[in-house]
Formats: sequence, structure tokens, C-alpha cells
Amino acid sequence: MRSSIFSPMTQRRTVFFVSDGTGITAQMLGHSLLTQFEGVSFNHVTLPFVDSTDKAQECVARIDAEARAGNGQPIVFSTLVNNDVRDAIRQANALCLDFFERFIDPLEAELGLKSTHTIGRSHGAFDKPEYQRRIEAVNFAVAHDDGASDRELDDADVILVGVSRSGKTPTCLYLALQLGVRAANYPLIPEDFERGHIPQVLRPYRAKLYGLTIAPDRLREIRHSRRPHSKYADPENCRYEVEQAEALMRREGVRWLDSTAKSIEEISTTIMREMRIERHVY
Amino acid sequence: MRSSIFSPMTQRRTVFFVSDGTGITAQMLGHSLLTQFEGVSFNHVTLPFVDSTDKAQECVARIDAEARAGNGQPIVFSTLVNNDVRDAIRQANALCLDFFERFIDPLEAELGLKSTHTIGRSHGAFDKPEYQRRIEAVNFAVAHDDGASDRELDDADVILVGVSRSGKTPTCLYLALQLGVRAANYPLIPEDFERGHIPQVLRPYRAKLYGLTIAPDRLREIRHSRRPHSKYADPENCRYEVEQAEALMRREGVRWLDSTAKSIEEISTTIMREMRIERHVY
Repeated sequence: MRSSIFSPMTQRRTVFFVSDGTGITAQMLGHSLLTQFEGVSFNHVTLPFVDSTDKAQECVARIDAEARAGNGQPIVFSTLVNNDVRDAIRQANALCLDFFERFIDPLEAELGLKSTHTIGRSHGAFDKPEYQRRIEAVNFAVAHDDGASDRELDDADVILVGVSRSGKTPTCLYLALQLGVRAANYPLIPEDFERGHIPQVLRPYRAKLYGLTIAPDRLREIRHSRRPHSKYADPENCRYEVEQAEALMRREGVRWLDSTAKSIEEISTTIMREMRIERHVY
Repeated sequence: MRSSIFSPMTQRRTVFFVSDGTGITAQMLGHSLLTQFEGVSFNHVTLPFVDSTDKAQECVARIDAEARAGNGQPIVFSTLVNNDVRDAIRQANALCLDFFERFIDPLEAELGLKSTHTIGRSHGAFDKPEYQRRIEAVNFAVAHDDGASDRELDDADVILVGVSRSGKTPTCLYLALQLGVRAANYPLIPEDFERGHIPQVLRPYRAKLYGLTIAPDRLREIRHSRRPHSKYADPENCRYEVEQAEALMRREGVRWLDSTAKSIEEISTTIMREMRIERHVY
């Protein structure tokens, strides 16, 4: 048998994320499961705010149309707290996996309580103080991005330091927006390396400092795509800055991690754990 | 029987989110289930990066210690792709609910495929182009916050407009960070109301504009907490700005929503749907 240079025909499936709320939980659950399958091309459709049987029937019509289109049986991931809406969706010609259905029963038995079946609890604004905390953390992160302000650093939960483009800004925004953590960030620049110590303004907050470092080659790549052929992106300069920043952090006793192969989520999770910061919001 | 003015003793439970990755999926799924129960006080503990049976056994020791502490049987929400690690965790004295376990089997049967059991797929940086797209969207949102730059608006997926403190910045950052959408935002200010049209620079991008409005009382509250007793936070001024902004958007044919009682997630989901923007990343 000759080996073929063509890959076998890829299976295609349409995946629906159906929810009475935003669909964010259904998307995350479905996505985390689908990444476990290779060789399938998934087409995603999110159907949010499905909070009545009428709306559920519109969804069923759409799912069934997709089933008839010949791309295999659709897959539905849903988070529906209302039993009638869930029953209506289950009439679709699809594999239906509802997240509440599978887990609410064992939880009710364990807690000896009935669930409230309240819609929009996960990503609504119903929990005002918690929600407010997230928004304030975002305002804080924006106001304290890239050393923009020295004010209110007393209120910071963490202050990230590192060379330009080591990942400080996206990490601070993630910490604020998703975890409600007040995160500031300060760049480490050549003047700091010449002086041989962290910026004066950060000295009172040494216990809040956490460093990000990055492989010089990756740093060069990122900087080059922003400012091609600049001193900023020069390989020698990138190597110099990273070495100096690491030496400075080591000397000053600042903990750090290497962000090169890590996602924002992995960086944030590591910082939270090492700095013993509690997640303030869910 | 006398009715008591005291509420019944609140049940307390410790909840563990255990994952071989960041734990973010386990947290979101667990949280969305727990919000369905009232009258229980949940204490959260996240145990991330549990990717070996040794680490699983450390977790079991910690969970069992909590069980002995007398706050009821712990509840464990886990996302563990490795069967051995999952089996080890199941030895804990707790109600163990694993998300992969419940859903992978029906998916394997439906797709006629075995899952890959690969760790860190959900929130790792393994999918480089997709991950890169999120980071670029964040850089774009930061560079185009609050009308900071008119450059590259051609590249925007959406441009939010609205009065100061109507929710534009957190929404743009959410769209960028979580959904990979390039979102810019422009404030509508008294000069725009006097001129009676949207800022000149936005005219070529009318099809990308989306407005946020807000109840004047809520606007006053938010502005007051930032600048107490200012003209900016004055009730009359807040009412004037909101009325003018809505009239302007109506006249210019800009769609908008009222952000007053909505979360960032609900606002973003609605914008994505109404502007027919596809989610670029998961």
C-alpha cells in the first residue's frame, strides 16, 4: 500500500453552546472538552440568552437545520437551569450535554438542599460588591499600567516588574478583570540597571513586587514585530536587558517567573499561588 | 411555635478546585453550580498544576484534613485528563465531581474517536496563533482606550462610544482579553453635543460604532465616587450628557445598549451578537 501525502478526510461537526445567560460557561466547558479531540474540525455557534421555551424552539430549528446540512450530528453544550427549556432543547437532533443536569443532582443530595434554578447567576451583575471590585481593579490596573502612576500603590495587591514586553500589561489586566486583583506594573529600564537598584518609588513596596522575565530570543521577536530594526529590538540589547533585569531582581530578592512559554492564565495562577493572593471574585 | 428572628445556622462547606492546569475551568464550572445554592457558606481552595499521582496524594491529604476539621464533607470540582491522577483524587473523603469524566465518554462515542488526554489544553499557550491574537487584541485595546489614538482604526472589529464612565474601558478589555476582539473606544464629550455629530475621526468607521448608555442616577453615583462634588458628577450634568449622547446616537444611526444593570460579560455577549462579530479565540 502506498502511503498517501494527503491527510484522511477531516470529520466536521457543528457545536452549539446554548445558555440562558451569556453562554460563557457553556463555551468554556465545551471548549475544554473539544480540545481533547484531534482530527475533527469544529464549527462553533453560541446561542445566548435562551430563557424561554419559545426561544428554545427557535434554537432547535436552527440545530436541526444544521443536522440536515450533512455535517454529521451536531453537538450541544448547554447550561440551562430551567427544566422546561432544557427539555425543549433536548428535542433537537443532536448530542445534548447539559452541564447543570449532570451535576445539580449529586450536589443537591450532598448539601441536602434544592437548587434555586436562578438564571444568570454566573456572569450577571447580580452580586454588586463583587462585581464592583472587578471594575475597580480594572480601573486600578489601567491607571497603574507601565509605571503611569505612583499614587495609591498602597492599595496594590501585587506590582509586576520586568523589561518592556515581558508580559506585564496583559497579566495585570487579566488579574484585574477576571480575578479582581489590584495589579500595578512598572517597567525595568536601562537607567535602573545603571543605578543598580529597583526604582526608588517601589522600595516601600518590596513585599508586593513580582518579576516577569522572558527568553531574549522571544523578546527580540516581539519587539521586532513592533519596532523593526530598532535598537530596542536588537538581539544584543534584548540579551543585555534580560540579563540585567534578572541580576537586579536576584540582588533585590524579587521573586520572578519566566513568561516565555506560559499563557496569561498560567502566569496569573502562578503569581496568585506564590504571592498567596486570594481570588476575590468568581 | 415562636418564629425566631435568627436565621438558621448557615451550613459551611470547603470547596476544592483541582486541576492539572490552571484550575480556571474547574473554578468557573464549580462556581456556576454553587451559585444555584443559597444558605451555604462556601470556602474556596484552588489546587492548580496537579499533574502527577504524587501531587494528587498531597491534595488528598489536604482535603482529608479539611474533612476532619468538622465543616462537613468537602466538595471537589476537578478537571483532570489523566485517569491515574483522577483515581488518586477520588480516594479523598469528599464528594468528587470531575468534569472530564462525565462528558468525555459520550463525546468519544459520538465522534468515534479516543480523546488525547493532553494536559493544559484549555488555558495553556499551546495554540500560538490564537494566543497571539489575544495578546495583540489587548495591545490594541490599551492603545485605543478613551480615544487615545486614531491610528489603525481600520483594524478595529468594533469601536465603542459613550459618555465618560458608561463602561467602555472594561468592556473593550474584556472583548480583547477573553474573546480576541480588537475593540477601540471613544468618549462622547460636551463638544460633540454642541457640534451635534460624532467625532470627525470616527465618520469613516460608522459601521463599526456601537454605543453604551447608562441611567443618569447610576452615572452620577460612579462619577461621584471618583470626583466628589464636581460638575462632572453633578446630577443635572449627568442627565444632560446621557440625553445628549442618546440623541446623538439616535440621529447618527448608532446602535446602543443600556449598561446600567448589565455585567461586562452580558454587554460583550450582546455586542458580539448585534454586531455579528465572531469570537476569535476560546
